[in-house]
Amino acid sequence: MNTVSTEIIQEYLDATRVGIDKELDRLLPAADHFPPSIHQAMRYSVFAGGKRLRPILCLEAGCLLGGDEQTLVRLGSALELIHTYSLIHDDLPALDNDDYRRGKLTNHKVFGEAMAILAGDALLTLAFQVLAEPPVASDRKARIVAMIAELAAASGTVGGMIGGQVADLEGEGKPPDAQLLETIHRAKTGALLRASLRLGAIYAGAAEEQYAALSCYGEHIGLAFQIVDDLLDVEESSAELGKTAGKDAAQHKITFPAVYGLEASHRMAAEECERAHHSLALFGERAARLHELADHIVHRKS
Amino acid sequence: MNTVSTEIIQEYLDATRVGIDKELDRLLPAADHFPPSIHQAMRYSVFAGGKRLRPILCLEAGCLLGGDEQTLVRLGSALELIHTYSLIHDDLPALDNDDYRRGKLTNHKVFGEAMAILAGDALLTLAFQVLAEPPVASDRKARIVAMIAELAAASGTVGGMIGGQVADLEGEGKPPDAQLLETIHRAKTGALLRASLRLGAIYAGAAEEQYAALSCYGEHIGLAFQIVDDLLDVEESSAELGKTAGKDAAQHKITFPAVYGLEASHRMAAEECERAHHSLALFGERAARLHELADHIVHRKS
Repeated sequence: MNTVSTEIIQEYLDATRVGIDKELDRLLPAADHFPPSIHQAMRYSVFAGGKRLRPILCLEAGCLLGGDEQTLVRLGSALELIHTYSLIHDDLPALDNDDYRRGKLTNHKVFGEAMAILAGDALLTLAFQVLAEPPVASDRKARIVAMIAELAAASGTVGGMIGGQVADLEGEGKPPDAQLLETIHRAKTGALLRASLRLGAIYAGAAEEQYAALSCYGEHIGLAFQIVDDLLDVEESSAELGKTAGKDAAQHKITFPAVYGLEASHRMAAEECERAHHSLALFGERAARLHELADHIVHRKS
Repeated sequence: MNTVSTEIIQEYLDATRVGIDKELDRLLPAADHFPPSIHQAMRYSVFAGGKRLRPILCLEAGCLLGGDEQTLVRLGSALELIHTYSLIHDDLPALDNDDYRRGKLTNHKVFGEAMAILAGDALLTLAFQVLAEPPVASDRKARIVAMIAELAAASGTVGGMIGGQVADLEGEGKPPDAQLLETIHRAKTGALLRASLRLGAIYAGAAEEQYAALSCYGEHIGLAFQIVDDLLDVEESSAELGKTAGKDAAQHKITFPAVYGLEASHRMAAEECERAHHSLALFGERAARLHELADHIVHRKS
């Protein structure tokens, strides 16, 4: 990506993030709402500097198919609540035991373990409330139900986020294995990224081939995202990442660099990005933003 | 309650529980499904001897209004998944730190803390999947969305289960306070019990006054349930309870006996039960089962 397009996408991301943050602020109970401690803990992690990639993907997929922007921002916020809950629980001492995330203390370091567990539970619960509560036209109810089913499946144990997290934890210390690596990452990060596209597609009433194309795009950027994540953990410093660098190797995690080496991993990320571009062929020029987002995911520095 | 009616309700409860357990077994991923550890952990706690009170309340409320029994058992199972997740997380060392529950080792004692946290997350997630995934007629989709919204609200932080749990934890060691006590228990146990009735009512297309009556019944049995729970903790032995007795006092929890004394607490439980009976007036004889369930809740021994 050249400098000009990097700047343009960054401006777009910053502007979109502002709108999503405003919606998240509206959806989360106020910090002084009883009992205040839990609402403070929830807000702390939601507003700890997330990139809002998942709501943005949902928004772009939905807008591409003519969906209403305001509703898509509201519904897409559910994805960020799920993502944030997963980070809070992953950081707990019993799991990855991380003290820093995005350059700030992790939730349990600030609010204690009990509150961090409950804040994660609360964000997970709120995600489904956000999808189910707003009034939508009665002929849209079936789409809401389908979105909830997709979000739950992508977050669950069978090929979803929790299943991936379990396989990742249990893979620590095992010999690097390409098959297991792909299984872990398709589930751990891939399923929710693909769901981000799918939620937007479902809401906007995607035709079957449109849904399949956006799912395919989601799978490729999902793998690209994870390969880059693994590479950043090796190549960047903790200061640049805002979290502890080099943790994967220290914990003997199964990663792309560990299985394929650095050079091949870089090549694979570029290939997945290329495949993501190809997946969008049927949308033509209209998918420009999703093309830019794929490039952005591969070229990000944190 | 006399001995004959106790026996009849027990037979009914046992038979209904068998059907619910069968449905839960069908809904949970198989114990050997990848990654097996999480599915074993989920199943361990779901099949650790729960009374299935919440699905039974959902089923009875729905059947009272002509709802289909099989679908109500399936949808009502979501309530048991939520209830089980909350027990697993409540028992964690960072929260109530309990080693036993229903006479068996708690989830984290068997599977470790990481897996217990993730198994709770997974059951919470699966609950919403159970509501959203099954095919229902398109004119029923709006009801499913309303059920999901109610379940999420009842499980959440604003007057819901997590809010009650936070207030309960933060109330430890505070002077006994009647107002705080009621706030905690309406949220911690009351909201999900009321939601059990409401989910059945929504699914069966309850009229406004039927919905209000069942909600009212749910609130009264919810308080009765919690008062009896507090009393059992004082009056029964650990062997009878299947969990550590006397923990409330040891942890300086705000309980009904602590605020009102034993005698007044017994009287209050009976009064709440009486109010629950009155709430059902408009259903006449048809609500016989819900009347029996109210009595059963007050007279239970564990």
